[in-house]
Amino acid sequence: MGNRNPFLPLSDAESPLLVGIDVGGTNIKLGLLDDQGRTLAYHTIPTEEEKGPNDATRRMGLGIEQLLQQSCAAPSDIARVGLATPGPMDLEAGMLLNPGNLPQWWDFPIRQRMSDECGLPVRYANDANAAAYGEYWRGAGSQFHSMVLLTLGTGIGGGIIVGDHLIEGAHGCGSECGHVLIDPSDDAPRDTLEKSGSLEAFCGAYAVVGRAQAALDEGHQSSLAKVAGSGTEITPLDVAQAAEAGDQMARHVVMDTAEYLALGIVTLIHAIDPDSVVLGGAMTFGGAGHPLGEAFLQRVRDQTLPRLLQPLRKTLRIEFAQLGGDAGYIGAAGLARLEHQQLQ
Amino acid sequence: MGNRNPFLPLSDAESPLLVGIDVGGTNIKLGLLDDQGRTLAYHTIPTEEEKGPNDATRRMGLGIEQLLQQSCAAPSDIARVGLATPGPMDLEAGMLLNPGNLPQWWDFPIRQRMSDECGLPVRYANDANAAAYGEYWRGAGSQFHSMVLLTLGTGIGGGIIVGDHLIEGAHGCGSECGHVLIDPSDDAPRDTLEKSGSLEAFCGAYAVVGRAQAALDEGHQSSLAKVAGSGTEITPLDVAQAAEAGDQMARHVVMDTAEYLALGIVTLIHAIDPDSVVLGGAMTFGGAGHPLGEAFLQRVRDQTLPRLLQPLRKTLRIEFAQLGGDAGYIGAAGLARLEHQQLQ
Repeated sequence: MGNRNPFLPLSDAESPLLVGIDVGGTNIKLGLLDDQGRTLAYHTIPTEEEKGPNDATRRMGLGIEQLLQQSCAAPSDIARVGLATPGPMDLEAGMLLNPGNLPQWWDFPIRQRMSDECGLPVRYANDANAAAYGEYWRGAGSQFHSMVLLTLGTGIGGGIIVGDHLIEGAHGCGSECGHVLIDPSDDAPRDTLEKSGSLEAFCGAYAVVGRAQAALDEGHQSSLAKVAGSGTEITPLDVAQAAEAGDQMARHVVMDTAEYLALGIVTLIHAIDPDSVVLGGAMTFGGAGHPLGEAFLQRVRDQTLPRLLQPLRKTLRIEFAQLGGDAGYIGAAGLARLEHQQLQ
Repeated sequence: MGNRNPFLPLSDAESPLLVGIDVGGTNIKLGLLDDQGRTLAYHTIPTEEEKGPNDATRRMGLGIEQLLQQSCAAPSDIARVGLATPGPMDLEAGMLLNPGNLPQWWDFPIRQRMSDECGLPVRYANDANAAAYGEYWRGAGSQFHSMVLLTLGTGIGGGIIVGDHLIEGAHGCGSECGHVLIDPSDDAPRDTLEKSGSLEAFCGAYAVVGRAQAALDEGHQSSLAKVAGSGTEITPLDVAQAAEAGDQMARHVVMDTAEYLALGIVTLIHAIDPDSVVLGGAMTFGGAGHPLGEAFLQRVRDQTLPRLLQPLRKTLRIEFAQLGGDAGYIGAAGLARLEHQQLQ
């Protein structure tokens, strides 16, 4: 064994290390973690999707070597690699199927290729699920026994963990929590996949912008009129900034988003009965410690709790995520740790 | 070991037996099962709720003795008892909390008392969850890796199993699938718990009857007018019988129920991504092999699939439950078997 990172307590000297890798459309994040989920070394490499998956797995293998150098650890210190990619995938076969943002990587046996590259066993996972497991292991869910994570962004992703059991689904799509229905009416908004009435169709980034634009079109007074008038499209950040600056229309749009989100959360809580619901992603309006983010979160709570069956309200917590963009690689490492434990 | 039931193959002679008990408001079902889930002996006793839980656990203990006599088995042949009751309960503590249909049994340490009574370890479970596990182990879900069960009746209950993992929830209520929201509008119907817009508020027995009555009130022609005109309330059975006899209004009510149910199923599938959705309970309009039941099921399928994300449609099956009222005690025995395996 090589010298260990000085932050790693001596008592952990024999506990296994884990690598977590999170493949995104732009960057690949790689981390070396100890058994407690502390990151000992970290770096990112560009995905360079167009060069194909063989090139990327080769560079991920080199990336693992770099992690070992950074932390003065030996290859034999690593128990297992956790690898997260976008879905859909065939988890059992370790195959990437046809993710929309990795068109050159379709139908690629990524688990085996990654394992060949680094000479280690690989736990393969959906990236949204891995992020959920990361928050559960080391982030906002670490005090709870079960957690539903909603990731708010252009779309709405999610992950569900019950006990130490990650619900991975029969088709490797992660938990498609953004596609729970909240409005059955024929004229309900449509989401990015043209599905009508889904949570995403009300709370995804396009939906938020769309409601702001519609309010302007209806003649509501707002500082957003300047943005729209300049010929550029309103962004979610414009809405958030206007709301923060006291713009009433923008604030209504944000708070309406919280109310729609609560409808989806009520449904998920009744189906799963979790200890905790955690909200992450870019569309949390500043998130924890930020006045607009906190007001958004409080509105979600206020609109959720009265709709729940009474016994389900007890001890339930609705909180912001804590790990940000690191949740994916941390969770991938956590899932590798879990598989390592289970197979021992 | 005593003589074994002749239906038990000799090769199973050393495999453990299991007791499954399902406590309902009226009757308690008790079964002795082998490791494959075959029922070797079965009988029921009245719940006699008013005599309190100590009396009932004593009689359940005697009921286990009777099962052993029926099957010529010895107490030492039984590995574990599975005990299912209505919730809410504290599963970790083995406590029955405050189930609405067992008012004399509130705050009763039922797992320990049952274990004291029979001298065996007891796996305690929510009755809806146990029924779901029963269908998963031995019924409609036995070919699948994951299953969402919806039990259609006065209310709508449910259970979710992923892998061999039953989602029991943080508050021992089972999966409250009947309370997923399908309509957020302020004037949506309310369910038995006065919650607005829930699946149960559209597909529970009262909702079905309510829609039939509303159609009559609006002047729609129907043979149900005779029932309503005689001063008695329409029942779900009346609606089903009229629909079977070709009454168009009644058939519309049944098919509308299928369409509302599909909305809830779409939501549950997106959240969980199961292999199978199984429909049980009294409100399945005759169920499998019955023309109205089959038309109902087909409408559910036809309304569900087009609303699903494309990858989730593959291999998904929507079927009727197979075990009827036996699912609870069979599932309780199955959960006892699972715990026995896990603790060995």
